[in-house]
Amino acid sequence: MPAKQDTFVTEITPRSEDFSRWYTDVVRRAELADYSPVKGSMVIRPYGYAVWELMQASLDARFKATGHVNAYFPLFIPESLLRKEAAHVEGFAPQVAWVTHGGDEELEERLVVRPTSEAIIGTMYAKWIQSWRDLPLLINQWANVVRWEKVTRLFLRTTEFLWQEGHTAHETREEAEAEALRMLGVYKDFAESELAMPVRDGRKTESEKFAGAEVTYSIEALMGDGRALQAGTSHMLGQNFSKVFDIKFQARDKSLQYAWQTSWGMTTRLIGGVIMTHGDDSGLILPPRIAPYQVVIVPIPRGNWQETVLPRAREAAAALTAAGVRVMLDDREEYTPGWKYAEWELRGVPLRIEIGPRDIAKSQALVVRRDTREKLPVPLDELAARLRALLAALQQDLLDRALKFRDDHTRRVTTRDAFEEALRGRPGFVVAPWCGREECETGIKADMQTTIRNIPLEPPPASGGCIRCGNPGLTDVYFAKSY
Amino acid sequence: MPAKQDTFVTEITPRSEDFSRWYTDVVRRAELADYSPVKGSMVIRPYGYAVWELMQASLDARFKATGHVNAYFPLFIPESLLRKEAAHVEGFAPQVAWVTHGGDEELEERLVVRPTSEAIIGTMYAKWIQSWRDLPLLINQWANVVRWEKVTRLFLRTTEFLWQEGHTAHETREEAEAEALRMLGVYKDFAESELAMPVRDGRKTESEKFAGAEVTYSIEALMGDGRALQAGTSHMLGQNFSKVFDIKFQARDKSLQYAWQTSWGMTTRLIGGVIMTHGDDSGLILPPRIAPYQVVIVPIPRGNWQETVLPRAREAAAALTAAGVRVMLDDREEYTPGWKYAEWELRGVPLRIEIGPRDIAKSQALVVRRDTREKLPVPLDELAARLRALLAALQQDLLDRALKFRDDHTRRVTTRDAFEEALRGRPGFVVAPWCGREECETGIKADMQTTIRNIPLEPPPASGGCIRCGNPGLTDVYFAKSY
Repeated sequence: MPAKQDTFVTEITPRSEDFSRWYTDVVRRAELADYSPVKGSMVIRPYGYAVWELMQASLDARFKATGHVNAYFPLFIPESLLRKEAAHVEGFAPQVAWVTHGGDEELEERLVVRPTSEAIIGTMYAKWIQSWRDLPLLINQWANVVRWEKVTRLFLRTTEFLWQEGHTAHETREEAEAEALRMLGVYKDFAESELAMPVRDGRKTESEKFAGAEVTYSIEALMGDGRALQAGTSHMLGQNFSKVFDIKFQARDKSLQYAWQTSWGMTTRLIGGVIMTHGDDSGLILPPRIAPYQVVIVPIPRGNWQETVLPRAREAAAALTAAGVRVMLDDREEYTPGWKYAEWELRGVPLRIEIGPRDIAKSQALVVRRDTREKLPVPLDELAARLRALLAALQQDLLDRALKFRDDHTRRVTTRDAFEEALRGRPGFVVAPWCGREECETGIKADMQTTIRNIPLEPPPASGGCIRCGNPGLTDVYFAKSY
Repeated sequence: MPAKQDTFVTEITPRSEDFSRWYTDVVRRAELADYSPVKGSMVIRPYGYAVWELMQASLDARFKATGHVNAYFPLFIPESLLRKEAAHVEGFAPQVAWVTHGGDEELEERLVVRPTSEAIIGTMYAKWIQSWRDLPLLINQWANVVRWEKVTRLFLRTTEFLWQEGHTAHETREEAEAEALRMLGVYKDFAESELAMPVRDGRKTESEKFAGAEVTYSIEALMGDGRALQAGTSHMLGQNFSKVFDIKFQARDKSLQYAWQTSWGMTTRLIGGVIMTHGDDSGLILPPRIAPYQVVIVPIPRGNWQETVLPRAREAAAALTAAGVRVMLDDREEYTPGWKYAEWELRGVPLRIEIGPRDIAKSQALVVRRDTREKLPVPLDELAARLRALLAALQQDLLDRALKFRDDHTRRVTTRDAFEEALRGRPGFVVAPWCGREECETGIKADMQTTIRNIPLEPPPASGGCIRCGNPGLTDVYFAKSY
């Protein structure tokens, strides 16, 4: 990563001036993450990790509610296992880290540090699955993975990242297909309900699918600079892995069959997605459901505030905590209220409570929304109830705002000229007809740095001829520049 | 790991016959873990991982209650960083995995897969810590680590394992010392309250301390075969790492000083400790607080049981779940009740509920304790309240039983003959005077495969001369054979 490494960020670049620098400034200045001395690897700092913990808890509950259990598989994968599935090794071998020595000894067989776990998990499933009674097998793993990246960006693309990977095995193609789509639905619901990040669900093209999958589904979000971010993928692996790893079961009709599999994953890049979906020139804006602190209380230090204001601020904090609100009371004496306002705005805390002697005289506090900066006096004895409602409203408003932004930045075009015109500046999604041929897909990618993000789950008839070759369109697809 | 790899365990070896085989049989037959195709690495299966998740949640809550936050640091550590602290690299270099290639390219500098994270975290702390206001810095990490082991055993010693590692920085030696002891206390409380595993806390000898620490504290548990298991360690690192990683801060008196540090860790080996503390010839016995299922309900399939028994069993399951009890209703038709009893006993579920037509006629169910096999008829409408009380009692009884076992297997000796006699068979802890010299410590280790587990936190005066050299004893210490 860049040489910035040892400098401290004190101000953040305006979002409109340089989106990319704004992003990096926010990540570092809000202490979400930092560069490390390991090329391409980042440190997730406590504030960023707290966001990840909330995301994890919410995703994990969704996985368990849909019948999945967690397990843990080895970090290292022997080279021979990775090589079993041809498309898989072709896709991953160029970007893996190789372990060649253990202690002082050279290994007989090199090990890869897992870039994904289909190979090691497939090997174990072959041992565990004997009969249709062992199916479906629905396992998820929370883990770190490594993919050797040449160009990296904090959260979005790093050599090591954290993720969850679901790996399931089923009796029939239909069940595997249903599982892949079910988990895509879980991802969509999670992104929209928790991250307030609207996503388009669809199917990846053949050239963009996961190495070894039969079908890859994805959800795609739109960032504040008009670029798309792949926010989660779910793969129907068919029998590709079960055939090479020999995952066979005795079926209900006593015949021996290969299992049908899926895999699906979401990663710490989602934190980057949240920043780029909601942030503004003042910094981060966190959706309340994933905010480590949903409310910050700033007591105003006037007069003998430690005897008058501070006790009431503490009472308010206790009442909010009791109501299940995550609250931070910032009673540091070395900083002014103004400094604190800017600091917590930068860190994206959804609501701020200002409380001073005049507020207390009126038995109220001033509540300030991070997103709209709206100020609302709230009676102290109604604080918990009112703030819970405000947090829910703010969560919904962030989603609505992001939805409106996405709709405002989605254009439908049917001609090549209109397509090229649409891709200038901060374009967003461009919905356009495509003939279905890889040649046109790669041509557009090469000419316009634009890719097909996905094909709608129920592909509509094409609205015209392919925007590249003019031949009859197969369907309309979502194009975008992307991260 | 051994060639057993592809065989299924159908019966478990009696504990008294071969403790070591009994242990491995229980781990595999209860589906806690399995061998993997990666030498020395294991797979933690869903049932074992569910135990780990409960341990994690409980430990994590204790860390947060004592002011710690979580973060995530890189898996890879550049060789030059590991080499900075002389004792540290000497201790760890022989047992690390080396990454030498990324993709197709050979790396300019080799990377170690973290065996522990003092080096990488120290580098970051040097960036983050400027002033006494930044202290104490109290960070924990949940992560996987790799130590190249020649002889491995499921959970107890594997090349890769899961753990937590706390890393803290303080203004003064006294604060660091207090932190190291505070976390030792947290570990002791966790082991005894959650795992029902009594531990002896104490200080490691110079030769057994962590590579790079000034002082290492440990808690030591006693397994069912009379061997000790190191269950957690907490290190006062002094300024050893802060000096080589340049972790300096401006002190309250404006002088520039090096930070004082601690680190502390607990690992998945605790699962092995639980098995060997509580298990019996029928298999695992899980303390209720870490049991994925605290209660299993087995409906007795007599007559039209699906209309009569099953609905009542479901009601009981729902009532227990509502009362916060983790319950499994085993309504599988392909297995007999007897088979299910044996299966869930093997898996260590603390309480079993048998419910059949005759029970229902009496509006009761039969509750069977896993530890004592005591059978208690319980009225159906009192089930939730009674079972919660029973689970609490069983948790306490397991601790009491383990405490009694430990006390019965702790002997105090003052002569060499008595020492040697005490170490035959399944000895347990032997408390004996030691002169404090490394020569005697290593001599005893070489002659009797017995180590000083730790020195009591408040070392008592020696009860006699050193049991090896006869010179005046410094203090009495805990000896044991160990894992």
